[in-house]
Amino acid sequence: MKKILPTLIVSALLTSCNSTQIQIDETPAKPNVKNIIMIIADGMGPAYTSAYRYYADDPKTEEIETTIFDKYLVGSSTTYPASVSGYVTDSAASATALASGIKTYNGAIGVDTNKNKLETVLHRAKKLGKKTGVVVTSQVNHATPASYISHNEYRRNYNELADSYIDNGINTDVLLGGGWKYFIRKDRNLVNEYKAQSVHYIDSYQELNNLPKNKAILGLFADEGLVEAIDDVDKYRLSTMTKAAIPQLENSKGFFMLIEASQIDWAGHGNDINSAMAEMTDLEKTLEYLEVFVEKNPDTLVVLTADHSTGGLTVAANGIYEWKPQLIRDLQQSSNSIAKYFNKHELSPSALSEKLAGIEVSKIEADNIASIKTIAKKKLSTYLSLSQEQKKGQYKPNVIKEINIAIKKLIDKKTNTGWTSGGHTAIDVPVFAFGTEKHRFSGAIDNTDIAKTIFKLLEEK
Amino acid sequence: MKKILPTLIVSALLTSCNSTQIQIDETPAKPNVKNIIMIIADGMGPAYTSAYRYYADDPKTEEIETTIFDKYLVGSSTTYPASVSGYVTDSAASATALASGIKTYNGAIGVDTNKNKLETVLHRAKKLGKKTGVVVTSQVNHATPASYISHNEYRRNYNELADSYIDNGINTDVLLGGGWKYFIRKDRNLVNEYKAQSVHYIDSYQELNNLPKNKAILGLFADEGLVEAIDDVDKYRLSTMTKAAIPQLENSKGFFMLIEASQIDWAGHGNDINSAMAEMTDLEKTLEYLEVFVEKNPDTLVVLTADHSTGGLTVAANGIYEWKPQLIRDLQQSSNSIAKYFNKHELSPSALSEKLAGIEVSKIEADNIASIKTIAKKKLSTYLSLSQEQKKGQYKPNVIKEINIAIKKLIDKKTNTGWTSGGHTAIDVPVFAFGTEKHRFSGAIDNTDIAKTIFKLLEEK
Repeated sequence: MKKILPTLIVSALLTSCNSTQIQIDETPAKPNVKNIIMIIADGMGPAYTSAYRYYADDPKTEEIETTIFDKYLVGSSTTYPASVSGYVTDSAASATALASGIKTYNGAIGVDTNKNKLETVLHRAKKLGKKTGVVVTSQVNHATPASYISHNEYRRNYNELADSYIDNGINTDVLLGGGWKYFIRKDRNLVNEYKAQSVHYIDSYQELNNLPKNKAILGLFADEGLVEAIDDVDKYRLSTMTKAAIPQLENSKGFFMLIEASQIDWAGHGNDINSAMAEMTDLEKTLEYLEVFVEKNPDTLVVLTADHSTGGLTVAANGIYEWKPQLIRDLQQSSNSIAKYFNKHELSPSALSEKLAGIEVSKIEADNIASIKTIAKKKLSTYLSLSQEQKKGQYKPNVIKEINIAIKKLIDKKTNTGWTSGGHTAIDVPVFAFGTEKHRFSGAIDNTDIAKTIFKLLEEK
Repeated sequence: MKKILPTLIVSALLTSCNSTQIQIDETPAKPNVKNIIMIIADGMGPAYTSAYRYYADDPKTEEIETTIFDKYLVGSSTTYPASVSGYVTDSAASATALASGIKTYNGAIGVDTNKNKLETVLHRAKKLGKKTGVVVTSQVNHATPASYISHNEYRRNYNELADSYIDNGINTDVLLGGGWKYFIRKDRNLVNEYKAQSVHYIDSYQELNNLPKNKAILGLFADEGLVEAIDDVDKYRLSTMTKAAIPQLENSKGFFMLIEASQIDWAGHGNDINSAMAEMTDLEKTLEYLEVFVEKNPDTLVVLTADHSTGGLTVAANGIYEWKPQLIRDLQQSSNSIAKYFNKHELSPSALSEKLAGIEVSKIEADNIASIKTIAKKKLSTYLSLSQEQKKGQYKPNVIKEINIAIKKLIDKKTNTGWTSGGHTAIDVPVFAFGTEKHRFSGAIDNTDIAKTIFKLLEEK
């Protein structure tokens, strides 16, 4: 185009592009968005993407490599819910805002503050004839996916939510995640009901390699959420599920897809930096695949954000100017699974160090965890000796959990990682976008703007 | 411009703007950047700008108002120093990177890891015939301004740095901040030396209203840093200094100016949310003034970022989903000044509540602070009864400091504010830009990119 225009006009054109950006945004060329992939990295506040850069840093090179997140950052998003819930959101209110463009109260699934049902971008896409897919690492009826698919006044009504997925009419062509507990129940077997509606059901990752074309898919791979990334047989299961889902969704009218890296949030709630970084690695793999898909399908838009930040993670703490992710880079199992091991085996500095991929452990540190284990075992044994009547109102001591907490604290101390909460915080979250129309998500935006823009893009044809 | 072009070409122009953004960036029109204003909000990580939105929220309206920061966010910046210092920077290494485009070790002022002197954007601007100004709320020879103005292998060599400001040749047309302690010394009176070089010296904010035209200005308003914003006679002293500085800097060749909101960092080190928000308010006022200046002078570029985040601030904590800045919105004095009051007056729930602008204080909470005061006073009295010999190696108990820490902890508990450190963290920091060529700072960038781009803009003519 530029070559056939006279120089003077090209110059005017360029000047115009540089100086009248707002004017251009007001009169955009009709976009050509066939496929929209919305990714929610649950709980992934800005500390997580910063931390991940240093965690993923190649120690063999002098420079610090940029990550795929760095490549596609376009701005940030607020996360606050409707005023009735203050400034700090939960995943339900935030997912409802991201899905419908309406702020609501904490706990709300696809309903507004008056409990009226809200249309979501997934519903609209379906109505417009697109295929829809939902791929998550939580149970498929957890707050985030449920807020796109269904409606309920309270997020913990898991059975009601699962029921609604079929009772309101199946609106997902692909639905992958966990959830046997809610879909295969004594009172109702939803899997059989899905099958009766010609939906192909699978319950192992292996079957993802061999999906029938032109059939809707329901894949459930765990009782609730999937095994955490670092311990799963497939550490990149979000990526694996995404790769399997997209070919099922591709069609001439395009698709809308929700991908949730659900368990970054769970690692945050558990103040578990090791698990958080493993979940981020799975997300990065997923993005790498999507990057190639978008190259081949430039009419695809990918938007990635978080619904909030979890755990009050800080990259350094305690007045010390260092963060040492290198200590956990080679750690290939969760602290929970290490805790399970030490529940049955003796704790020594060398055994603990070996399990922690070589982190140096002092005698005092190992003794401290051993003593926590001993106390927890004693408490458990006292509890077990009680009568059923006496046990009422008392919680059953969890030895593995206590050991796990102690190991996580040791990892935090060694890496100098900080946390302030087992819950969420109100920091703005990063927004990433690539593919067509990515510029629509630039700058500081509100979480409702993401849904509003996707609605517009779905309608603009 | 667009009106005189035929419709078809306008349409092509718009299409081109939307679809060939990268191409446009590769062949930009020569920029017309006359004035560059670099603002460093020391320590202002993303939690601070998020927190400030909720702190500044007008309680009389249902919606949450956006802030001036929301208006101009363009991306984020890394902060990490040269690899010898790990992943967590100090202000010296970060300011050197922002000023020179070179990463260096923590503590370095305008020198690289081999202690070679680095040219900064301020030096280059001066060399190119622009005027230069530095306006800060710390002492003017503190790490950030010093990294733009001078060179030293260690940031704490304050006297050497002050000396260098005159010995290396005065390179600032306006220099405003604190620093009597370093500029008026027994061994050397730098103020007199500045005066001897025809620099106009002032030592009160009032004199900012009456500056002589066409004279260089040195304004020092405190022994070290200025009084913290919330307690200062002028709570918007950064804004006041900026307003006074700019008319002195305006000239046909343009100017480069560094503004530092230095004490956001200090509030962060002190884990003082009340003071942090007051410093942010002063920064917002400064930005509001600059916004008007840029409207009138569209050949001006304003870039704002932080050098790092301080304190591991989190907006909510302790597993509780709320943050309550409304409790400190009406607080018009620092916890330090409240501590000074209670050092001399009796602590009661009602007296404490009154000083804390109405925050409810229980008897247990007031008693706790009273007991901290009593213990600190006893320790001080024991210390004072020691002989000079016995005092050696012991620190003098600071009653006001102990009361202040207790009050800050009370405010944190009431507002549910979290902190993990008295130092810095490695989270990426937000980048804001407005005025001409603002798009050059978009996306996820490295802190050195900011200097590199400013060098380019200074040379592109």
